[in-house]
Amino acid sequence: MSIESSAGRAFAPGHITGFFEMHDDPDPRRKGSTGCGVVIDGGIDTIVTRGVGKTEVYLDGASVKADTTCSLIEQLVDFPVHVNCTSSIPIGCGFGASAAGSLSTAYALNDAFSLGLTSNQLVEAVHIAEVSNGSGMGDVEGQYFGGVPIRKVPGCPPYGVLDRVPSPSFEVHCIVLGELSTGSVLNDAGLMRDINSAGRSALRSLLARPTVTNFMEISKQFTLKCGLASDRVMDAIEAVGAAGGMASQAMLGDTVFACSVEETKKDVFDALSTFAEVTTYNVTSCYEHPVKF
Amino acid sequence: MSIESSAGRAFAPGHITGFFEMHDDPDPRRKGSTGCGVVIDGGIDTIVTRGVGKTEVYLDGASVKADTTCSLIEQLVDFPVHVNCTSSIPIGCGFGASAAGSLSTAYALNDAFSLGLTSNQLVEAVHIAEVSNGSGMGDVEGQYFGGVPIRKVPGCPPYGVLDRVPSPSFEVHCIVLGELSTGSVLNDAGLMRDINSAGRSALRSLLARPTVTNFMEISKQFTLKCGLASDRVMDAIEAVGAAGGMASQAMLGDTVFACSVEETKKDVFDALSTFAEVTTYNVTSCYEHPVKF
Repeated sequence: MSIESSAGRAFAPGHITGFFEMHDDPDPRRKGSTGCGVVIDGGIDTIVTRGVGKTEVYLDGASVKADTTCSLIEQLVDFPVHVNCTSSIPIGCGFGASAAGSLSTAYALNDAFSLGLTSNQLVEAVHIAEVSNGSGMGDVEGQYFGGVPIRKVPGCPPYGVLDRVPSPSFEVHCIVLGELSTGSVLNDAGLMRDINSAGRSALRSLLARPTVTNFMEISKQFTLKCGLASDRVMDAIEAVGAAGGMASQAMLGDTVFACSVEETKKDVFDALSTFAEVTTYNVTSCYEHPVKF
Repeated sequence: MSIESSAGRAFAPGHITGFFEMHDDPDPRRKGSTGCGVVIDGGIDTIVTRGVGKTEVYLDGASVKADTTCSLIEQLVDFPVHVNCTSSIPIGCGFGASAAGSLSTAYALNDAFSLGLTSNQLVEAVHIAEVSNGSGMGDVEGQYFGGVPIRKVPGCPPYGVLDRVPSPSFEVHCIVLGELSTGSVLNDAGLMRDINSAGRSALRSLLARPTVTNFMEISKQFTLKCGLASDRVMDAIEAVGAAGGMASQAMLGDTVFACSVEETKKDVFDALSTFAEVTTYNVTSCYEHPVKF
C-alpha cells in the first residue's frame, strides 16, 4: 500500500457497557465511571495524514463533526489533520464508538507524527476529551484493556484501576432498535441517582462472582432496576431468555446484546432476528493497537 | 473434544525482558521489577483436571518439578490436581516460561473448579509464587497486559503500574545459545547493583522516547553495560546489526532476540541462522486467556 510518509493508522475496538456508576471529580483524569462491559472485535480503523487549512474528520466517507475526536486532536498536535475513520460498529448506539474513534486517532497521530507518547498518555488524552465532551463513560479504559474489563476505580491510568472477568473468546449478538440520547440520561439527576445506586451494587455482585454468566445476569437486573429499557428492548431481552440465552441492554443505547452457550446459539440468533438485523462480534483477548501500513 | 466436566484450559504467552531493575519490598505484592519487554504469541497451553493422590505437573509429556506452578496451585486449591502443559517457547531461556506455566495454570484452575477469582486475583497469586520462588522478575504482569509492556512501578495489580510502547504487530526472531543461571545473577550483589543502576536509566530513556526501535537500542546498551552477554551473544547481536536489524539479549537467558524492518528481515534471519536455529514469534495486541474446550 503506497501511503505518504507522515501517515499513521490504528484500530480501536468497540466496548459495550453492561452496567455502570458515574463518579464526578474536579480532576478530569479521576472523573469517569466504574462498571463492566465487553470489548469486541468490531471497532474503528483510522488513517490520519497532515491536513490542509483545517482539521477534518470523515467517517465511512462522510464528513462528521466528531467533537470528542477534535478535542483529542487539539491536545496532541497544533496543526490541521485529515482523519479518515472506517467503522464496523454502529455509531451512537452504545458501542463506545466515540471513544474508539478518538483512541484510534490518538494512536494514528502518535505514529504519523512521532509524538513519542506511551499508551497511557494517549489513553489519558482520550479520557480527558471524552469527559470534557460528556461523550463517554469509561469506554476508552475498557478498549485499552480488552476482554471483559471491570472498571473498579474510575479514571485513566494510573488513577483508574482495571480488572478482568476471566473468559475465553465468545460471541455477542447485537441488535440496534433505535436511538437513546446519552445527554437526556446523564442530565436527569433523579435517574442518575438510581443508576449510580444500582451500578454500585452491581459491581459488588460481579466481584463476588466474576463470570460472564453473572455479568450478563447482573447487567439485565441493572437495566430493569434503572428503567432504561424501551418496551422493544424488554421484549428482545425476554425473547433471548426464552431461547436459552442471556441478554441485556448496551449502556447507553437502544441496543440489545446477547450471548449463549453453543447449544442455544442458533435459537438466540433467531429470536433476536425477529426484532432487527443481528450483527455478531467476538469478545477476545485483544485491545487497541496501531496498524502497520 | 470430549473432556471431563471439572477440567479447565488456558493459554499464557511468553514474555522476553529487554532490561530491568529489581525492587525489594517486605510485601511480596509490591516486590518485583520495573523494565520493559515484549509479549509473544508463543507460550504455554495448560489443561488441568482433578488429580489423584498428589499434584503432578507435566510439560510436553514429561513429569517436571515446576516449583512456581506448585506454589501457585497451593494458594488456589486444597486438593491434588493434574496439570498438563504444552509449550511453544524454550524453558529456562528468558522467555518467561515459569510465569506462563503458572499463569495458564491459574486461569485453567479458576475455570475448572469455578474458583470465582478475577484476573487481578489470579495474577496476584502467580506474582506471589514467582517472587517467593525467585523464578520471575515481572513476566506475569507483562503477560497479563500484552504487547510491549512497560513496568513503571513494580508489583502485581493494583500496586504495579503498567504502560505500553504503542506498536503494531511485529516479528521477533529468537536464538537460544545456551543456559544462564538466573540464581547466579540475582545472588551476585555487585552485578545486581550494576543491573539496577543501568535498568533505572534505561527506563528513563525509554519513557522519553517510547518506540520499539528505542526499546531495542536501550536493551542492547543495557546488556553491554551489565556485561551479561556471552561472547556468542555479543557476536550474534553484532551480526544482526550488520545485517540491518536490531538485537539484544533476553533477560535472563543466553538468548538473543531480534527484529527488523521488512526490507532487512531476510538478512537478519540469515545472520541469526549462522549461530543457531531461529524461531520467529509475533508480538501482538493479545494477552493471557482461558481457552474454550
